[in-house]
Amino acid sequence: MKCRKCPSRAVINMRQHKLALCKDHYIQWILDQTEKNIQKYKMFTKEENILVAVSGGKDSLALWDVLDRLGYKTGGLYIHLGISGENDYSNQSMQFATKFANNRNLQLHIANTVDMIGSTIPEITSLSRRDKTKPCAICGLVKRHTMNAIANDFNYDVFVTGHNLDDEVAVLFNNTLNWQIDFLRRQSPVLHSKAGLQKKAKPFCRFYERETAAYAILSEIEYIEDECPFAVGSTTIHNKSILNQLEHEHAGTKLSYYLKFLKAKPILFPNIDEDFPSMDDLFVCSSCGQPSPKEGKCSYCRLVEEVQSKKLLR
Amino acid sequence: MKCRKCPSRAVINMRQHKLALCKDHYIQWILDQTEKNIQKYKMFTKEENILVAVSGGKDSLALWDVLDRLGYKTGGLYIHLGISGENDYSNQSMQFATKFANNRNLQLHIANTVDMIGSTIPEITSLSRRDKTKPCAICGLVKRHTMNAIANDFNYDVFVTGHNLDDEVAVLFNNTLNWQIDFLRRQSPVLHSKAGLQKKAKPFCRFYERETAAYAILSEIEYIEDECPFAVGSTTIHNKSILNQLEHEHAGTKLSYYLKFLKAKPILFPNIDEDFPSMDDLFVCSSCGQPSPKEGKCSYCRLVEEVQSKKLLR
Repeated sequence: MKCRKCPSRAVINMRQHKLALCKDHYIQWILDQTEKNIQKYKMFTKEENILVAVSGGKDSLALWDVLDRLGYKTGGLYIHLGISGENDYSNQSMQFATKFANNRNLQLHIANTVDMIGSTIPEITSLSRRDKTKPCAICGLVKRHTMNAIANDFNYDVFVTGHNLDDEVAVLFNNTLNWQIDFLRRQSPVLHSKAGLQKKAKPFCRFYERETAAYAILSEIEYIEDECPFAVGSTTIHNKSILNQLEHEHAGTKLSYYLKFLKAKPILFPNIDEDFPSMDDLFVCSSCGQPSPKEGKCSYCRLVEEVQSKKLLR
Repeated sequence: MKCRKCPSRAVINMRQHKLALCKDHYIQWILDQTEKNIQKYKMFTKEENILVAVSGGKDSLALWDVLDRLGYKTGGLYIHLGISGENDYSNQSMQFATKFANNRNLQLHIANTVDMIGSTIPEITSLSRRDKTKPCAICGLVKRHTMNAIANDFNYDVFVTGHNLDDEVAVLFNNTLNWQIDFLRRQSPVLHSKAGLQKKAKPFCRFYERETAAYAILSEIEYIEDECPFAVGSTTIHNKSILNQLEHEHAGTKLSYYLKFLKAKPILFPNIDEDFPSMDDLFVCSSCGQPSPKEGKCSYCRLVEEVQSKKLLR
């Protein structure tokens, strides 16, 4: 198959876009489309400081690479979660993130749950009275707190994550299966800052996972290929396989599902601007000072307190 | 496994309800639950005349049987669509419907598309300029028109269909995949009459397909087991297999998906009472007098006109 834009051999064929491209035109296409998304959803500008949440995987490193190439002012944040597993997951992924930043002379902040809380994510999960089959919920809480804290401490205007279309539709799918209105309302390519919550954006939200993977490979980005060992068997992974079947039947199903949702949102949630975030009254955590939907300490600080008191009792 | 209510052997185990029942208690359970649904969703009363849309399949005949046993005043409507296929589908299914009505001394109205339009559904599909790969859309249009006409002509207050939970969630799933707000808004166990549109109800909407099938078998109802030959390979059938996978992973997923949707509806569509049906201005068809979202002739009458003029040209 030939490239649509030149006589070279195509390296990728995107059925949903009816578009086949060679290596150079594909890389340029990803750059152009990312810039277009940033503009379309008013994510951020070249004047703002952008903190990229980096896991060491293909999506986040590809995103950081693209933003850097497009001339955005970026720093990275790697959060060491203390997850080992067969492949020494956290240490390995940190090395990929560090190498990436060093090679490009970009600043990488490294946070570590052992420094912050005194424990790794597996330890926190086993100590907490929260559901032990769901380490991803605790991990998400820790990550959100840390990203917000680092963004505040180092004066970043926005933090961005490498969530791709497959991630977004898996979440959307789960939110409709459970009709979680608040989550549906908040799902967006960009969430503007409010009441001390940083602005968040997902510049890759319209790219299929295979497209970000192809970009990472063609750009010779080295990344950790293993999934987090806790993600195996998760609802998200299961939902992704269901959505892959739908995509296989009709190319473009995922993209159309996501874009039609974004189009329907203003009809489903007409007061969305005033409602963002949907928590009616945000309080300030009495311990860390971050916004919280509840009075007193926020969920993160309560988790830290619980884990530390249980450690003292051992 | 024993019946929950007596020492007999259970014939069915409903994992989502954690309930196993013997034949007699299961039949009684279906009767009780149907009555509960009719009350809960204010579908109809014992004073009203109910027209049951009967296809000859397990769901519609089981529904008619249940409503009759519960003491409701019912008549049936069978629409002969002229679909043959390997098993002479329409003739066979009409025989099951007729036998059922005769055995119970119930009135069955029989309509036939050849009498009404001069053609069978397969002929109408091939003559019409509408999408020929979608006979189900044309068939649905013809059925809705006919049910409304018969209900009006014979003074029925409400017409009911045998849609079960599997049918409802397959439609719901498709409506969220495509974010069809108008369809989501209208999906309901009962649609109250407005502007000449009959009240419609689905008393079986909370029963799994295997539950209605079990009721039909245990009640010794004879029904056509074949699916309509046009339904094979349809989106609905495909969606059902996807939803079966989800149900297999977590028993009760379909029921929870549907009930959470019904709970979310007043939040998603707060003005639902005024909006029903969501067509803002209903017109009266200049040919048949039924309500129509457009001025002039309704879709059904335009289809009839198109098919008859094409037949004259042959």
